[in-house]
Amino acid sequence: MVPHLITALTGPINELEQRMLDAMPAIERWFRLEWMEHTPPFYTSVALRNAGFKLAPVDTSLFPHGWHNLTPEMLPLAVQAAMAAIEKICPEARNLLIIPENHLRGPSDLADVAQLQHIFNLAGLNVRVGSIDPELKKSISYTLPGGESVEVEPALRLRRRVGLKHFDPCTILLNNELTAGAPGILEELYEQYLLPPLQAGWTVRRRSRHFQSYEDVGKRFGKMLGIDHWLIHPISANAEAGSGKKSLDALRAAVDLVLTKVRRKYKEYGIGEKPFVVIKADDAADSAGVALLRDVRELEALAEDARLPRSGHWLVQEGVLTQERMHEAVAEPVVYTMDRYVVGGVYRVHAATDATAVVACSHDARYVPLAFEHSTHLPQPGVRPGASAPNRFYMYGVVARLAMLAASYELEATDPELQELA
Amino acid sequence: MVPHLITALTGPINELEQRMLDAMPAIERWFRLEWMEHTPPFYTSVALRNAGFKLAPVDTSLFPHGWHNLTPEMLPLAVQAAMAAIEKICPEARNLLIIPENHLRGPSDLADVAQLQHIFNLAGLNVRVGSIDPELKKSISYTLPGGESVEVEPALRLRRRVGLKHFDPCTILLNNELTAGAPGILEELYEQYLLPPLQAGWTVRRRSRHFQSYEDVGKRFGKMLGIDHWLIHPISANAEAGSGKKSLDALRAAVDLVLTKVRRKYKEYGIGEKPFVVIKADDAADSAGVALLRDVRELEALAEDARLPRSGHWLVQEGVLTQERMHEAVAEPVVYTMDRYVVGGVYRVHAATDATAVVACSHDARYVPLAFEHSTHLPQPGVRPGASAPNRFYMYGVVARLAMLAASYELEATDPELQELA
Repeated sequence: MVPHLITALTGPINELEQRMLDAMPAIERWFRLEWMEHTPPFYTSVALRNAGFKLAPVDTSLFPHGWHNLTPEMLPLAVQAAMAAIEKICPEARNLLIIPENHLRGPSDLADVAQLQHIFNLAGLNVRVGSIDPELKKSISYTLPGGESVEVEPALRLRRRVGLKHFDPCTILLNNELTAGAPGILEELYEQYLLPPLQAGWTVRRRSRHFQSYEDVGKRFGKMLGIDHWLIHPISANAEAGSGKKSLDALRAAVDLVLTKVRRKYKEYGIGEKPFVVIKADDAADSAGVALLRDVRELEALAEDARLPRSGHWLVQEGVLTQERMHEAVAEPVVYTMDRYVVGGVYRVHAATDATAVVACSHDARYVPLAFEHSTHLPQPGVRPGASAPNRFYMYGVVARLAMLAASYELEATDPELQELA
Repeated sequence: MVPHLITALTGPINELEQRMLDAMPAIERWFRLEWMEHTPPFYTSVALRNAGFKLAPVDTSLFPHGWHNLTPEMLPLAVQAAMAAIEKICPEARNLLIIPENHLRGPSDLADVAQLQHIFNLAGLNVRVGSIDPELKKSISYTLPGGESVEVEPALRLRRRVGLKHFDPCTILLNNELTAGAPGILEELYEQYLLPPLQAGWTVRRRSRHFQSYEDVGKRFGKMLGIDHWLIHPISANAEAGSGKKSLDALRAAVDLVLTKVRRKYKEYGIGEKPFVVIKADDAADSAGVALLRDVRELEALAEDARLPRSGHWLVQEGVLTQERMHEAVAEPVVYTMDRYVVGGVYRVHAATDATAVVACSHDARYVPLAFEHSTHLPQPGVRPGASAPNRFYMYGVVARLAMLAASYELEATDPELQELA
């Protein structure tokens, strides 16, 4: 089930969206069966782009931020999902430790941690915030703009457990991208649950692996729904990064490959737009530094100006246009999930009005929460209550959960314990 | 977690309520551990009475009606809970059959069935409504006041399965009190899930057994919280019903016993009210015909006027005053649960203004949905968002879940399969 949130979509429902709305029971059942075999990532936020003719995920975060952007009405959904998750993982849980990002710059960095603390507290846990930033030597109390305060304490390692002074958690919630790699303090915890696991960090994660899993998921889902999986999947290729001619040639080949495939698809579907690709770092949390190009000949200039993302690997990905606008600015829906449930959504809004604008890389993006649709207040003749307006957030919830499922495959593939068994 | 709904409580928080609010994480953990051992009833509605100094359940329905009284905002919570329940019971489910009460008088009897249909449809199931009323020979389409239509089809038995024409459900949701006993059409279904099970019907159920289970639950909960369990429990006694002198003597003894115990408690807590008892049928779905008395001497008159409930057994129960008022009328909170979650609440409002008014037995009661508290919109200095006003619905959610847990014990005690094993 996907909550009925108000999207920026006002146009007619196109074929893809209608197909998903019509197949809702079959889709929900498909997910139910998937979750019998696979464990959902504890929480995610999935950024999507909706071109109208296609809808695809562009970024799946396993350490989702921005929880404070969810509306108060969504909170009970998140709490109920948190309860379901905790019950499965560690029903006897009493204490939960949240580990925020290192290098907190101030209260604004803690608004979403405060919301997470609130959610897990309402789910029935004692929640405290512990930083693994080695520079933090003593507790700091931050006062948020709303007036509430959050205390960040230095996390302590005691034998095989991590905790705080006088606080021994059985579950540790990571809200830290681990960009510098798995810190020693979190390694070899045999008696505590670390959520998500260490391999969700960016020293292990690869965007290319995620999108490969996503393609597998998308193909199977497309087969079930009877659609070409390209309608929900961005074509990708990857290339080893470097500054030499060999690297650039490989990158050029990858860009050419993706553009050619996309051109073929545009032709097949009669789409009159000009394809473009984005080049992303394959292994960096920060999607800043995404390069966009419409022609392989633009590559030389990008390389010369050092505008290619810094990374060991590059991911070249089909650029997905975005149809959605809020007050004419480009808007990218971001869907929040917890356990197997969609618990909310926000729009990431960029000042640009160009459909190709890559919102993810812009630091001046604003976040606009999606409100609940209350159409059930006004039932229409001949129509079921609550169904009087179609849930246009539904397809976002579906594609976000496909990305979440791909992340689940991804975490299984990189699970050191499962690898040992294999 | 209990959604933050606006109650009619405006006075200061008393000791009992404060104790529950303070112990929230411990309470939630206690429930979590209980649900490791016991299966929650699929859904319930629990009517409560709040006397201020005490809060107790007065009726636990295992075939809850009135779902249409839940606000649209609560719907996603119910759907998410339905998903969790279905996933545990029958993840491969595709089709769900709802069995409504027999003898449907018209569209107004179907508003809540339509809401249930909507909830399970959003949870990803194909849902149809099948009646087991032997008088229903062909489908009837009802048009509800809101304009939507519900089709009620005659349920069919085919070997070991129940279904509809061209509809083979794997799960059957009973929303029928089974007052006439377990109908043959639902017996010996070995290959379908019947929710709740047949022993939840009123030929097997006894109010006395429920409140006995509730007392066990209440004692353990009281011990954990460090409170006298009387503060959440109505004292009860039962007596075999009949019209002879022997029956009346037994009933008098039961009334006397309960009144004496309550008087002692009132004295202990310095409560200046006059105790009263209610006499209920021990085994009837309909709580109409509840008799109220303040003095054992009133019993003769009740018996002579044939105002005692008709039943094989009587349950004599401590009457709980109700402090809550909506526009001066007595209001009884009714809490809805699904799986282990509190998914909403309504007030049952009676025109009477007397605190002893027995709302449950009055047919002229109105239902007022409880709205969500949106205090998080206006965070207060120094206070966590969402916690800026205490959740006064919380204690209702706690006591309702204690009654739900008692119902779980009750269903275990009357489970024919478990009895065979014992």
